[in-house]
Amino acid sequence: MAPQQTRQWILSNPPHEKPVYEGEDATFKIQTIDLPEVGKEQVLIKNKYFSNDPAQRGWIQADTDPERLYTKPVLKGEPMRTYAVSEVVQSNSDKLKVGQLISGQTTWAEYDVVDAAGCNPIQVNEQAGIRATNFIGALGGTGLTAYYGLVDVAGFKAGETVVVSGAAGATGNVVVQIAKHVVGAKRVIGIAGGAKKCAWVESLGADVCVDYKAADFKEQLLKATEGYVDVYFDNVGGEILDLMLTRVKRFGRIAACGGVSAYNGEGQGIKNWLEIVKNRITVKGFIVVDAIMAGRAGEIIGKLVAGVREGKIKIGEDSETVVPTKFEDVPKTWNLLFEGANQGKLITELTE
Amino acid sequence: MAPQQTRQWILSNPPHEKPVYEGEDATFKIQTIDLPEVGKEQVLIKNKYFSNDPAQRGWIQADTDPERLYTKPVLKGEPMRTYAVSEVVQSNSDKLKVGQLISGQTTWAEYDVVDAAGCNPIQVNEQAGIRATNFIGALGGTGLTAYYGLVDVAGFKAGETVVVSGAAGATGNVVVQIAKHVVGAKRVIGIAGGAKKCAWVESLGADVCVDYKAADFKEQLLKATEGYVDVYFDNVGGEILDLMLTRVKRFGRIAACGGVSAYNGEGQGIKNWLEIVKNRITVKGFIVVDAIMAGRAGEIIGKLVAGVREGKIKIGEDSETVVPTKFEDVPKTWNLLFEGANQGKLITELTE
Repeated sequence: MAPQQTRQWILSNPPHEKPVYEGEDATFKIQTIDLPEVGKEQVLIKNKYFSNDPAQRGWIQADTDPERLYTKPVLKGEPMRTYAVSEVVQSNSDKLKVGQLISGQTTWAEYDVVDAAGCNPIQVNEQAGIRATNFIGALGGTGLTAYYGLVDVAGFKAGETVVVSGAAGATGNVVVQIAKHVVGAKRVIGIAGGAKKCAWVESLGADVCVDYKAADFKEQLLKATEGYVDVYFDNVGGEILDLMLTRVKRFGRIAACGGVSAYNGEGQGIKNWLEIVKNRITVKGFIVVDAIMAGRAGEIIGKLVAGVREGKIKIGEDSETVVPTKFEDVPKTWNLLFEGANQGKLITELTE
Repeated sequence: MAPQQTRQWILSNPPHEKPVYEGEDATFKIQTIDLPEVGKEQVLIKNKYFSNDPAQRGWIQADTDPERLYTKPVLKGEPMRTYAVSEVVQSNSDKLKVGQLISGQTTWAEYDVVDAAGCNPIQVNEQAGIRATNFIGALGGTGLTAYYGLVDVAGFKAGETVVVSGAAGATGNVVVQIAKHVVGAKRVIGIAGGAKKCAWVESLGADVCVDYKAADFKEQLLKATEGYVDVYFDNVGGEILDLMLTRVKRFGRIAACGGVSAYNGEGQGIKNWLEIVKNRITVKGFIVVDAIMAGRAGEIIGKLVAGVREGKIKIGEDSETVVPTKFEDVPKTWNLLFEGANQGKLITELTE
């Protein structure tokens, strides 16, 4: 019997700064709703894994000008949107059978009714080491972001040097691997938080990974970037970006992918902007949607899959932090993103 | 009789923040030196007009990493460099006769011995309204900066919209005129300080010029940039840049030309960096040397001269602030740059 109702999380108080997880002012609230009819070319899905992405913080910001956001914002009272891996439990589409796993956009809900056209059927391949969660990670939007940003946006080429911040994060670890093993970097420098994460980034192919929590972080980074670098792939913004503006070569490039340090209203602002002028740096902002609009998604995902098959890109269980989560705790697991808690992609696994 | 000695200004205390003009800690000090022999293919010049450029502030900064500066820094004890219009008073080169006016690089000195190869002979044409000072302004490096930054760097095209900050300044007023009358902008928005400067910028062709000293500056700028703009030509950095990051269109471009507001260590830093990511803005830093290295100088100066002849670019006396200056006051006239005192190019006219 298909369920008639579902619990879902709605945005109850769009935050100006840090989201709140308790009490009357809580950013998100849980509610139970009747599921709509499953219409023509629609399916009823049961959500199994949620993708947790820093960009979601931007979707819920209070007082956002919708014209300045790259996607529809989530408005007060609306269900929180997410990417997910889900299972089809009822289908009104010939293209999707019951039991099929799909990746696509849904909401923070146990069940959802969605258009079949927006569902990507996925095939788990245990022998090849390809798990369901990879399709919202290295073989999904995250891997697409990494490749498109490094190669298409920053124009990174074999023989060049690159610094990747958030190098132990979802996008960063894939950038490191693509740079070193697919493109053929001369030198890859990671930046991550803590010795354990740094060791992992180096195991993936970084020539060195600098710990931003170390007391002598700045000295270590200056040493690691001696002679300056061609490209900086920025996942974090803030102070690390400000420092990196002084470490990019003349006529170097910055791919501006994110700014997790600034999403919750923190940070002191960028002081070294004049480096852009003096050293004629090109900065390009981008988001994953650009790769799709440019028609690059199919080819890039193909390259990522080939990279995995050839052993150049590792997407093992250590490249994901899968957090088993009761539905009541979905927002709290998402918040781990902003605490630097995850190694690789942070994924919510819904438990019963 | 050619002079045997000259007074010159040397950099005595490279500044960290604001230059100092009085006392023991003064940034610059005056000295009298013996002039060197005029060698083969050299000339002795008498300096008549000094070009005053915000970029000079960068040349003298304390603790500058020479590798990060686009030109040689001026070191402690060295004479202060400048561009100038000068008169040849003794020549060991067949190419330059005594009495010839030239533009080129020299120092803050009354007389200097320089290589003939670095001297550009200039022709004043009173009938066409072309004065000697124009060759260190709209028909020299300043005009080259304006055209190269707008057209080559930002890729500005007919039918587009542009905001120009420092619009009443040396570079800005030429950018406004090129955008409106040479390229064919749909709309040109200037930003300048004070009603008088704004009225002048509008007289040059800006559809509107917003006064950053007005109490409701932000509201005025939001209104002037309704629908957002394709290009922002940044001469000032700082808070105006930060605001403009929110007013550039999706996939818009920023030509980063300067940051006069930050040269003396002021400013709060850039808070709106994430706009670059969210709206996929491209920022390109550049300096005038790039235009020369790219072999674009000849063609661009030709276009500027043609623009003047066709009446599209006005380079009248109101496009320069020529300050008659005793040699003892050369640094003080230069400092007017940072007080927003000049309309158009700030030029020092050396008086006897």
